Amino acid sequence: MSRAAGSALTRALEALGSPAGRLDEGAAAEAAALSDRLTKPRGALGRLEAIGERLAAIARRCPPPVPQPAVVAVFAADHGVWAEGVSSWPQEVTAQMVANLCAGGAAINVLARQGGARVVVVDVGVATPVDGAPGLVSRPVRSGTANLAVGPAMDIAEARAAMEIGAEVALEAVAAGASALVTGDMGIANTTASAAVVAALTGLAPAALVGRGTGIDEATLARKTAIVEGAVGRASLGDLGPVGVVAEVGGLEIAALAGFVLGGAAARVPVVLDGVIALAGTLAAAALAPEASGFCFAGHRSPEPAASAALDHLGLEPILDLGMRLGEGTGACLALPVLTAAARVLSEMATFDAAGVSEKEA
Amino acid sequence: MSRAAGSALTRALEALGSPAGRLDEGAAAEAAALSDRLTKPRGALGRLEAIGERLAAIARRCPPPVPQPAVVAVFAADHGVWAEGVSSWPQEVTAQMVANLCAGGAAINVLARQGGARVVVVDVGVATPVDGAPGLVSRPVRSGTANLAVGPAMDIAEARAAMEIGAEVALEAVAAGASALVTGDMGIANTTASAAVVAALTGLAPAALVGRGTGIDEATLARKTAIVEGAVGRASLGDLGPVGVVAEVGGLEIAALAGFVLGGAAARVPVVLDGVIALAGTLAAAALAPEASGFCFAGHRSPEPAASAALDHLGLEPILDLGMRLGEGTGACLALPVLTAAARVLSEMATFDAAGVSEKEA
Repeated sequence: MSRAAGSALTRALEALGSPAGRLDEGAAAEAAALSDRLTKPRGALGRLEAIGERLAAIARRCPPPVPQPAVVAVFAADHGVWAEGVSSWPQEVTAQMVANLCAGGAAINVLARQGGARVVVVDVGVATPVDGAPGLVSRPVRSGTANLAVGPAMDIAEARAAMEIGAEVALEAVAAGASALVTGDMGIANTTASAAVVAALTGLAPAALVGRGTGIDEATLARKTAIVEGAVGRASLGDLGPVGVVAEVGGLEIAALAGFVLGGAAARVPVVLDGVIALAGTLAAAALAPEASGFCFAGHRSPEPAASAALDHLGLEPILDLGMRLGEGTGACLALPVLTAAARVLSEMATFDAAGVSEKEA
Repeated sequence: MSRAAGSALTRALEALGSPAGRLDEGAAAEAAALSDRLTKPRGALGRLEAIGERLAAIARRCPPPVPQPAVVAVFAADHGVWAEGVSSWPQEVTAQMVANLCAGGAAINVLARQGGARVVVVDVGVATPVDGAPGLVSRPVRSGTANLAVGPAMDIAEARAAMEIGAEVALEAVAAGASALVTGDMGIANTTASAAVVAALTGLAPAALVGRGTGIDEATLARKTAIVEGAVGRASLGDLGPVGVVAEVGGLEIAALAGFVLGGAAARVPVVLDGVIALAGTLAAAALAPEASGFCFAGHRSPEPAASAALDHLGLEPILDLGMRLGEGTGACLALPVLTAAARVLSEMATFDAAGVSEKEA
């Protein structure tokens, strides 16, 4: 891991806080003007045109580079709140799925192969031993979080350490050639921590945010909601700040994803967000550096209620809405061809002049 | 063009009318069962799972083949109703865009290149001369339709001839190796004819169906609606039948697309539908062979009101909803990676057993 010139997280926050860290609205305007000269009615490519403009604003040039290849970073961690019975899955599934992800057998591996993206699996705090995981980036901050139902999930230094790892993974991926970053996550019970972070950072009521995760029954949902309500009562954003909130009621992968978003934004590449885990991390990132969310695209709409609440809060409109609720980065990865298409039409389509096509009459 | 064993259209209708032409519900059930053994919570891939099941039903095997490579067939034709001022574009734009499509400069060329699909441009009735269009498949049935505002757009034999061409193009593409077909269209004023066909085949009121196409003002919209109302008054499905309706108020590319859908369904490949032009053709195809719509996927939701009405009538839920209203097959082509992903997860994901991942507790 390169650690030149201090902390990756600090550098990212400094970059995003400076005028040079802003989106380039001039490049976006150039993309809009170019789009209107292409052989199609104005606006006929719908949201593809707005996406192309934002890619130009991110890259500071028009036409924007094609956001390929991408790196999907899957941050894996366990949650102490699992002990409260908020999930129907055994905790060791996190470690087993890490091995599956490293072996290439998980859904995100299939979707990443299809899209020409590379999957990087990062252990930031898996609680049980991970066996047979070739290529795993092993950076455990602690062995899973503590139980957020009874006290802080971790301390501030641990949350910062996980954020630092996320920022480093982002910067290293970009240094190694990634033109887009995709958020991924794995961790049994992580929708409980995510709902708590979303509640604390948006001020919305937990009852409106807690969802069924991988599929829990009514009684478990009620218990999960009560746990989130209790935890959020301790996690005032005003008192704790965004890092404090993530430490109190969040998770190690949520912290890492916050850092990953900040690192990607500082490196000026599009960051494609998956579901509620990534959105919880992005809320924390945006609370630290408001400019960061402009570098993010919401890959899809997860059915978890906290996901839609976070999307609204961040002002992001999802690209896909296919009812996917798997995590791992799957919904985000499947949205990549839309970003690629938005960039490619700006580079490759003919203009009215060049193609000798008559324009619309006034 | 191969014309073995009679008309391609007749053969397609015969195939779809026989028990062997049905969707294979056994293969779909196998795909659903396989999906539940893969390393993910049940149903967590959302609509991807249902799409995978239908791909299995279409191909009659599980896992289904990956629907690649695809062929995008862009059927181009002009519309006599253009003379009524229903579009703000000059009529010669159809021919100019055919040249642009053949030169590779249109939006669909960019999206098809990205997706590894081949574009076939078929002139079934462009009214003005097409210059410099290498690779164009020239099969004009007539030089654009007659003005449907004052009489039949074409006669029944012409509509049948255009449908035959569409079916032939589908069968030839599959014979040449296409594993999926994508509908494309080009023709100034074609949303007027499409709205009329959708109105006649669904029984819905034209005022609820006519839209702004490539962008018309309020006065033009009112004129367009009045024209469609007048035309649909002559086009009773009960009196004319589906081919008669397409002849009376439709277009040559709409007829060709109806044949293309029937050909693709008979050849048992998925047919990905673009916008309102394709949906008008698909309504005609489904009126002739109800089984056909089960082989179709709605690539996206076009903002044209007739598109949503046709989707409802056909029972199809669109994959993308990005506000695209360009035609050419762009919205359908952009949905191809979702179909591909649905097939690939069934072939490539690990099962719980194989990956040694524990299952959810009862």
